[in-house]
Amino acid sequence: MRVIVTENYEELGKVASQHLLGHLFSKQDRVNLAITAGTTPVEVYRYLIPEVKGKAYLSHAHFYNFDEIPYKESQREGITMSDLRELFFKPAAIPETSIHVLDGQNYQGQDQRIHQAGGLDGVLLGIGADGHYCGNLPGTTTIDDQTTKVICDDQMKARIGRHFEEAADVPDYYVTMGPKSIMAARHLILIANGKRKADIMRKFLEEEISLALPATILKLHPNLTVIMDREAASDLTKSDELGSN
Amino acid sequence: MRVIVTENYEELGKVASQHLLGHLFSKQDRVNLAITAGTTPVEVYRYLIPEVKGKAYLSHAHFYNFDEIPYKESQREGITMSDLRELFFKPAAIPETSIHVLDGQNYQGQDQRIHQAGGLDGVLLGIGADGHYCGNLPGTTTIDDQTTKVICDDQMKARIGRHFEEAADVPDYYVTMGPKSIMAARHLILIANGKRKADIMRKFLEEEISLALPATILKLHPNLTVIMDREAASDLTKSDELGSN
Amino acid sequence: MRVIVTENYEELGKVASQHLLGHLFSKQDRVNLAITAGTTPVEVYRYLIPEVKGKAYLSHAHFYNFDEIPYKESQREGITMSDLRELFFKPAAIPETSIHVLDGQNYQGQDQRIHQAGGLDGVLLGIGADGHYCGNLPGTTTIDDQTTKVICDDQMKARIGRHFEEAADVPDYYVTMGPKSIMAARHLILIANGKRKADIMRKFLEEEISLALPATILKLHPNLTVIMDREAASDLTKSDELGSN
Amino acid sequence: MRVIVTENYEELGKVASQHLLGHLFSKQDRVNLAITAGTTPVEVYRYLIPEVKGKAYLSHAHFYNFDEIPYKESQREGITMSDLRELFFKPAAIPETSIHVLDGQNYQGQDQRIHQAGGLDGVLLGIGADGHYCGNLPGTTTIDDQTTKVICDDQMKARIGRHFEEAADVPDYYVTMGPKSIMAARHLILIANGKRKADIMRKFLEEEISLALPATILKLHPNLTVIMDREAASDLTKSDELGSN
Repeated sequence: MRVIVTENYEELGKVASQHLLGHLFSKQDRVNLAITAGTTPVEVYRYLIPEVKGKAYLSHAHFYNFDEIPYKESQREGITMSDLRELFFKPAAIPETSIHVLDGQNYQGQDQRIHQAGGLDGVLLGIGADGHYCGNLPGTTTIDDQTTKVICDDQMKARIGRHFEEAADVPDYYVTMGPKSIMAARHLILIANGKRKADIMRKFLEEEISLALPATILKLHPNLTVIMDREAASDLTKSDELGSN
Repeated sequence: MRVIVTENYEELGKVASQHLLGHLFSKQDRVNLAITAGTTPVEVYRYLIPEVKGKAYLSHAHFYNFDEIPYKESQREGITMSDLRELFFKPAAIPETSIHVLDGQNYQGQDQRIHQAGGLDGVLLGIGADGHYCGNLPGTTTIDDQTTKVICDDQMKARIGRHFEEAADVPDYYVTMGPKSIMAARHLILIANGKRKADIMRKFLEEEISLALPATILKLHPNLTVIMDREAASDLTKSDELGSN
Repeated sequence: MRVIVTENYEELGKVASQHLLGHLFSKQDRVNLAITAGTTPVEVYRYLIPEVKGKAYLSHAHFYNFDEIPYKESQREGITMSDLRELFFKPAAIPETSIHVLDGQNYQGQDQRIHQAGGLDGVLLGIGADGHYCGNLPGTTTIDDQTTKVICDDQMKARIGRHFEEAADVPDYYVTMGPKSIMAARHLILIANGKRKADIMRKFLEEEISLALPATILKLHPNLTVIMDREAASDLTKSDELGSN
Repeated sequence: MRVIVTENYEELGKVASQHLLGHLFSKQDRVNLAITAGTTPVEVYRYLIPEVKGKAYLSHAHFYNFDEIPYKESQREGITMSDLRELFFKPAAIPETSIHVLDGQNYQGQDQRIHQAGGLDGVLLGIGADGHYCGNLPGTTTIDDQTTKVICDDQMKARIGRHFEEAADVPDYYVTMGPKSIMAARHLILIANGKRKADIMRKFLEEEISLALPATILKLHPNLTVIMDREAASDLTKSDELGSN
């Protein structure tokens, strides 16, 4: 595991982008990257967009969402893809042929599609304050899960509901790449910024691997890079976490 | 995970050796391989010995034991290293400078030494009928463990005792690279042969990841190759395990 | 450059095969190998055939010929492919979909086809007593040539003629992957055996790069492995060639 | 060869830096980069300096100069290293232990030192209007040269002389890594900017490999990336050079 602490969120965005660009510049073949939506990657995409937009030399980049909350009984694209389009795909003018949608209909073929495409070169992901990553929330997926459907209980539906304007749109389930799917990627890049993530980053780095904090399983990956800003690192008690081991 | 089923144990030995030789021929820099003692690798070493003995072009190969049962209050080398010397190091004339001993005294520095040497390019390991790998027996190490000392209860001491002629030599502990250490390697090569391993291979491939079967955690590694002969594969019920996914 | 000197031709065949198998076991994706026909690789294929025949786990291997002497005005497959089929493809039961034929009709698309397939992971090639490699004989191709047609003068036609029973079959040209095509591969494995090759191996290793000895340009490749037996190494005057530098 | 054309010099600096950072983020082990002095890389270093300065997570970066014009009979550091210190090492606060000086005294050990350090992961180099690269000017080094001393005739001394204030400081020779040394690197990144380089870039990309234009030999490298701005690309007549092949 390599731990990088940046001065601020701006540097985090730049360094995470440089990791992704590093993958893109490392070979001429297709590069497959699964990338996160949400608030954490905003600075990453802000930096990355002008670096990739309209660049013919980056036309071999292929992007995947790793989870999705679909609209109930609607053909609208789900929450994650809609967010990624606004955050990154549209501003970066990523061609549709380079965007590989995971949704509530096709999730069962996700791992096979990715395998046939050569596997994921990298996954850019965040970590929730509750230790979740992708859609692997505490109590949802098991460690054996590949891409799977998670049925939502009322509590989860309430949580998910905040993404939707219409109650009728709130789905009964969401889909996510599970622990096995994510661990199969060649490189994991976990990002966290801000005081709000300080506690979970302390737990992530200093406490035991536990199903209660799903992201902790990622510490077993042979090629995990953790990038956090000083604020997210501010609760750490052990300085030897910083660097690489 | 890539699953290779060989016709027989002889082919298993050859194919596993070819994987190790592949690592050795892939670069001129130092190659670090952690290798297993015991009965499973006998055919691997039988094949490998003439391939490496006296070959100047393989002088960049470095070997590590990943566990050790030391002699109690004795300077004698432990059970694992003694076995590896007989099985492989002596017949293959591996120079002492290419052999990196893990023992009861130096185990706390093992992960740091390996890290500074560039990390493990590969681990050749077997799986016990009880699902153990290296010295990670059910109920001994935790998922967070790097190289660690395992204190032996009476049951364990009885089990270990069979390696020793003198009761006074039986130690109170053994050391092993733990799950975190093994998962940090770039490539895991898990070998299993014979009817005796058919049941555990079925469980390993078809059942859930579980602390009760420690080796199952290795299914999360992004670069795991499983090599077994037809006998060890004879209990499998799902044919899609064969191949890669 | 890495120089490996084997005890005998049998070991050369085994070590060269192990290099090829190393490439095949290094990834699950398609592996592209361009391989030589002729007498030098006979022992390589003899060793390799049982290692690959019928192995489902090597179904991702793809093979290319790098030159071809076509039959004049005939639909018969050319000399090189016919030889490769007898030497290797048939005995190893390589599926037709894994054999990528270069011939007098399609040579202009060869480099593009290979590029789109991901590039060559390795080229197994020999060296002629006159310093030629593939169809890059002295005075034929230029250093800028990719896959190209070489028009044969009478002297060349006489030389080529010995491959054919009927004079009418002798072509006016042959095709070959040129220096630029071969240098584009990720790994070059040059093999030479026997006293007959001792002089050219001395020149290759000890003399200057020269168009008069076309293979010498390969010494500029960042990943060249030379495998020769003691007989082919018997004229070498400088011992520091042995090993790597 | 991969050809990247950037909108302007600023983008060239950024993209070239991203290539170097990609190497640095691709592994935790030591990364060896040989980098150019002079005017072409000014924008690269301008961009790179804040990215690397004071970053503990980039402490595994090691830098090499690939040529040097020494002060005659003086202990002063040569022209290249002095320039690199001003351009990059000092502003980026690169530790002295990460700077590997090539000079008039130690040049004979350069290739061995680099080999023992694991080889060059990348070389960032420019191209002269006369087609030179590093110190491989037309008529100086031969294609077989590794790191070598080039004796200067009067014309060369006049050319070199412009670097020096005192005539007495002008040396009789300079040292450079030769074609064999540069071609041994795993990745070559050739940069060119401005109208002044348009003619040589046209010749480099469109004309034959020739000793008269030493840099053209680099087109034989299996992993060459050419980065130039629109101005440097403005004389190109063939659009298919843009992209990769």
